[in-house]
Amino acid sequence: MKALVYQGPGKKSWTDVPQPVLLNPSDAIVRVDTTTICGTDLHILKGDVPAVQEGRILGHEGVGTVTEVGDGVHDLVVGDRVIISCIKSCGHCINCRSGLYSHCLGEEGVAGIGWVFGHLIDGTQAEFVRVPYADNSLYKMPDGVSDAEAVMLSDILPTGFEIGVQAGGVKPGDVVAVIGAGPVGLAAVMTAGLCGAATVIAVDLDPSRLEQALDFGATHTVMSGSPGWREQILALTDGAGVDVAIEAVGVPETFAMAVDVVRPGGRVANVGVHGRSVELHLEDLWIRNISISMGLVNTSSTAMLLRLVTQHKVQAAKFATHHFSFDEFPAAYDTFTRAAETKALKVIISRQTEADE
Amino acid sequence: MKALVYQGPGKKSWTDVPQPVLLNPSDAIVRVDTTTICGTDLHILKGDVPAVQEGRILGHEGVGTVTEVGDGVHDLVVGDRVIISCIKSCGHCINCRSGLYSHCLGEEGVAGIGWVFGHLIDGTQAEFVRVPYADNSLYKMPDGVSDAEAVMLSDILPTGFEIGVQAGGVKPGDVVAVIGAGPVGLAAVMTAGLCGAATVIAVDLDPSRLEQALDFGATHTVMSGSPGWREQILALTDGAGVDVAIEAVGVPETFAMAVDVVRPGGRVANVGVHGRSVELHLEDLWIRNISISMGLVNTSSTAMLLRLVTQHKVQAAKFATHHFSFDEFPAAYDTFTRAAETKALKVIISRQTEADE
Amino acid sequence: MKALVYQGPGKKSWTDVPQPVLLNPSDAIVRVDTTTICGTDLHILKGDVPAVQEGRILGHEGVGTVTEVGDGVHDLVVGDRVIISCIKSCGHCINCRSGLYSHCLGEEGVAGIGWVFGHLIDGTQAEFVRVPYADNSLYKMPDGVSDAEAVMLSDILPTGFEIGVQAGGVKPGDVVAVIGAGPVGLAAVMTAGLCGAATVIAVDLDPSRLEQALDFGATHTVMSGSPGWREQILALTDGAGVDVAIEAVGVPETFAMAVDVVRPGGRVANVGVHGRSVELHLEDLWIRNISISMGLVNTSSTAMLLRLVTQHKVQAAKFATHHFSFDEFPAAYDTFTRAAETKALKVIISRQTEADE
Amino acid sequence: MKALVYQGPGKKSWTDVPQPVLLNPSDAIVRVDTTTICGTDLHILKGDVPAVQEGRILGHEGVGTVTEVGDGVHDLVVGDRVIISCIKSCGHCINCRSGLYSHCLGEEGVAGIGWVFGHLIDGTQAEFVRVPYADNSLYKMPDGVSDAEAVMLSDILPTGFEIGVQAGGVKPGDVVAVIGAGPVGLAAVMTAGLCGAATVIAVDLDPSRLEQALDFGATHTVMSGSPGWREQILALTDGAGVDVAIEAVGVPETFAMAVDVVRPGGRVANVGVHGRSVELHLEDLWIRNISISMGLVNTSSTAMLLRLVTQHKVQAAKFATHHFSFDEFPAAYDTFTRAAETKALKVIISRQTEADE
Repeated sequence: MKALVYQGPGKKSWTDVPQPVLLNPSDAIVRVDTTTICGTDLHILKGDVPAVQEGRILGHEGVGTVTEVGDGVHDLVVGDRVIISCIKSCGHCINCRSGLYSHCLGEEGVAGIGWVFGHLIDGTQAEFVRVPYADNSLYKMPDGVSDAEAVMLSDILPTGFEIGVQAGGVKPGDVVAVIGAGPVGLAAVMTAGLCGAATVIAVDLDPSRLEQALDFGATHTVMSGSPGWREQILALTDGAGVDVAIEAVGVPETFAMAVDVVRPGGRVANVGVHGRSVELHLEDLWIRNISISMGLVNTSSTAMLLRLVTQHKVQAAKFATHHFSFDEFPAAYDTFTRAAETKALKVIISRQTEADE
Repeated sequence: MKALVYQGPGKKSWTDVPQPVLLNPSDAIVRVDTTTICGTDLHILKGDVPAVQEGRILGHEGVGTVTEVGDGVHDLVVGDRVIISCIKSCGHCINCRSGLYSHCLGEEGVAGIGWVFGHLIDGTQAEFVRVPYADNSLYKMPDGVSDAEAVMLSDILPTGFEIGVQAGGVKPGDVVAVIGAGPVGLAAVMTAGLCGAATVIAVDLDPSRLEQALDFGATHTVMSGSPGWREQILALTDGAGVDVAIEAVGVPETFAMAVDVVRPGGRVANVGVHGRSVELHLEDLWIRNISISMGLVNTSSTAMLLRLVTQHKVQAAKFATHHFSFDEFPAAYDTFTRAAETKALKVIISRQTEADE
Repeated sequence: MKALVYQGPGKKSWTDVPQPVLLNPSDAIVRVDTTTICGTDLHILKGDVPAVQEGRILGHEGVGTVTEVGDGVHDLVVGDRVIISCIKSCGHCINCRSGLYSHCLGEEGVAGIGWVFGHLIDGTQAEFVRVPYADNSLYKMPDGVSDAEAVMLSDILPTGFEIGVQAGGVKPGDVVAVIGAGPVGLAAVMTAGLCGAATVIAVDLDPSRLEQALDFGATHTVMSGSPGWREQILALTDGAGVDVAIEAVGVPETFAMAVDVVRPGGRVANVGVHGRSVELHLEDLWIRNISISMGLVNTSSTAMLLRLVTQHKVQAAKFATHHFSFDEFPAAYDTFTRAAETKALKVIISRQTEADE
Repeated sequence: MKALVYQGPGKKSWTDVPQPVLLNPSDAIVRVDTTTICGTDLHILKGDVPAVQEGRILGHEGVGTVTEVGDGVHDLVVGDRVIISCIKSCGHCINCRSGLYSHCLGEEGVAGIGWVFGHLIDGTQAEFVRVPYADNSLYKMPDGVSDAEAVMLSDILPTGFEIGVQAGGVKPGDVVAVIGAGPVGLAAVMTAGLCGAATVIAVDLDPSRLEQALDFGATHTVMSGSPGWREQILALTDGAGVDVAIEAVGVPETFAMAVDVVRPGGRVANVGVHGRSVELHLEDLWIRNISISMGLVNTSSTAMLLRLVTQHKVQAAKFATHHFSFDEFPAAYDTFTRAAETKALKVIISRQTEADE
């Protein structure tokens, strides 16, 4: 089969590799029909994630068709159309039993982390992929959901919702600022209403992203480069600050912004993947009764979000801005890398270009 | 009357001042019978808290007797023996209505902070004190509680419990590390069991404080200066780290320790009052699903803790290591300042030395 | 002044009574501009609520203008336009401090119940009303809200939301059945989305009420008299039952329906005011892991709902079906009493008919 | 092998049956070393549980040694000493993913119920037992725990804690009444302190059980037959009622007692297995803001409780009042059936009488 293989910093190729086989009774083999690219894949390609070794097939998002199941798989049969979750979960370690699937201790990959595809084992940017703990890591696709919608459930929708909205403790009537209107930030914007957010302020440097944010459910936008950006945000509250600030960029400046706009008693939810440390001004903050959360998605909300996507209450299709076929992987990566220019949110890469969408 | 007056950095005196009078219908005047000194008072005396102006009477902890009440006070009458809470609460602003008394927006002092005594208005290290919002800021003392026990409810017991144990989300069976075995750290140690902590590890540089911690309910102790301190803590868990780490010192090093020992999915509760910023290694932490809380006590647990102190289920008397009379204020401050040497936890200062205890 | 006075079972009159005066420092006097009628008022008029004595002024909902405030009132001045909450709250008793304002122990009326207007003290169906604990019992009206919208915040919107949606623990993605599409049931329907309900099934005997429910946000309707009503509801779930069933009628049959349609692990929220006991089939239910809640509104959500009404995110105006002036009280009661026929939801009764709406 | 087989109402025998074999990859076979009898077994023997068919091996509690594992079992090997949980859990159905293991939809037994042993499949009162979903249904025994302690984790300790204490929402400082001081009631008494209960009132008709309750952690006892029993309970509160009432008997009278003593805003947790319906006085209760929970144990607390039992913080050994060997099954049942007389709590039945305990 063919797959997109990491060949050291800056190098990748769509090349021939051996077909995956079942290794454990709880495994399934899935033929990948649609995949996409995550910002994390770009980090890996730069060589920023040393755990990813040369020869690794990239990708942790995908939609496909089950072609083989192990003896220990209960709920799936060959032919099932499935969403591949970016998190594997054994379902019985101490972390899985408490819903912390992100830190599944099951034996696949490096024990202790649920994100294994395109990281510790071969990923989804391939014609076929082996999926460990298939009963927990695959979600059957109901009728009426397109591949392009469904692939948003592999990672970005659960991440924005769980690590942004839920970890931020958004509750009815809240004012929420989302710093960063990229795909994951927009996933938080789109799902904030599920917890009753009344005011959702998208904050970004790029006016076209802010424009887009309004279409994803933001009620207000603030240009983060503008003077008085903080005052603009506070003017949308009672003056004390937002109830919840969601950081969805991953640099010290945006983290500082999130902390700066949250009210006493409020919550900062960090969703961004950071490469550097940040300075936390505890000399001012200790008295402010705020909390700061961070983390990798558990995908505990995937089944729920899938129902809402199916009912078109969460409009996942909006994220799919560009479409490619498997033999166009380089162009897909190029389009996604130059997102500021191409206005790409998520690029959809399919066995065949989804002409029917 | 006499009171302990702040006279600029490094200077204080027990001197004559005018008697306080009722300013608002919800005020009460309380004759102070017992007070104590907090680490914050030492910071103020150094000039570290610019909001405290010269001439301010110090102190935010105390037990006394009501001598006058305003027309708007419902629940108190002259002669009631009361605990003075370090936090005033108007009971009707948006923050008070949501239990965030620490940030009461009521008009006393600077709006927006519940801690006013010895800070924004005159405090409790005096013969008499005016107490705003008396119905919410005073707690009637039941029979069977001594002044020395009760004064621990003004600040340290609610602070250790709410900002350490509750904000840390301690739950049944948890392993909890408390970094810093001073009075507030020990208050967290003493109350961790109320939320079911199974293992409580006291961590400190001072072996005599660790010894003391065992008497307050710690199940294990770790010397923080010792090589392998982190491994010693992890050995008391399943290897992954503690469920909750409570920081009760207030310096960057101890904050870093707290973050270092917490498990994926765990919680860091900062109780320490910090004077400098800390470095937060989000480049490692973003994936660890931890949360970090901080704040000023709400005193929402005071009534509950008072019942437990009265029942001797929380043994507040253990904190009272030294006793002084009002005319011995300098000696009391000296003893508390040299705590490492004197082994002082809380010094009790009373109208008359409590010979009867 | 004139007021609607209860004169024993079946008897009421709009008659001259003395003007109310301030009794306590925390009181305010409010000139009533708009009031409305609740189903409870009809019960009182039948003589079903013995605590209501002859001579009592009826009504617990209203919007008005402050004409006088006591010395202990902090946040209100004469001339403020206010919503009168159906619940008084002293803000400092043990119940108020834990948010259980419905059981305020403050001294007004019979201690232990927050609902006093038109019950234990004179109510709002009058030209003027005395409001105890005014800081907590009145909400300032922002610009842009009409009286007819605002009066829905006195009782029905907080009741439907708190006792239905919140007590029912509605969470994102839930399937919720609301049994009874009267005003309070529709308030639950309208606010269920604030907690993320994905499917809201209105259930009623009356097809016109079901039709109306769709306009209030119901996603589906089921005729409760029809054969197979239960199967119709279950068909909208995974077959196991709804996540939350809200009872908003108050008779044994509808309570039984709610219990019948809830899934294992689900929750029944009783909002209905019952006059008879119900049979609870614990012999079947003990194993089903359900919970059943009930209660009087706390009005802890009033300020939040007011913001949403002001932003037109909660469309309170939909409840106002009929308008009357104060001298048309008999007609207003008549219209409300014959709701099945008149299609009345809430009747708005104003000093002058609100021609400007 | 030999097993205790149900042979229709009133009839059972310790008789020869075929050895169990692996049926699914996730199964294990366990040699039973110790088992015990539950009140539910007595109900089954009376014929009260029609789902139990003739020929069924009884029992759902046990401790043993793994003798065989399926290919899909990850965490267990032959020779492991294990606790058999009364609840099987597939770990991947919608209920298991939300922690509702009690209603596991996995295919074993009748889908939809987690309790299968001695009910829908053969149970633990046998020399060997097949355990489905072994990774989730078995708990490895650490050193230092005896069989007699460990077998309390199969059912009664998790049941008392989860369905009594946790479902009752016990929180620090609470006053808790436990109605019924049998084994499960005492399990609630013993674990109430894990959630911070300050006052635990055991209520029973039998003075010797009340005496025993004090040894399990009750702070007070009340004879339920005595006049003024309710007043005695209320006198231990602020007069308003208990925060949490736990029903642990299963008859209408004790359920009514639980409802009668709970304060406004409090919670009733039903643990008892009921055979008849109860009358719920909604005409009085609708206004009292109480909630009522009920259910089958999820065993989500088993691992946590096992750690506490191992540390002797939960003293499970206290429940083991009588010891028998497998060939004394009739005597064991007899002793347990006549518990009022024999003072039996749990009877321990082992391959060999545990002489070493």
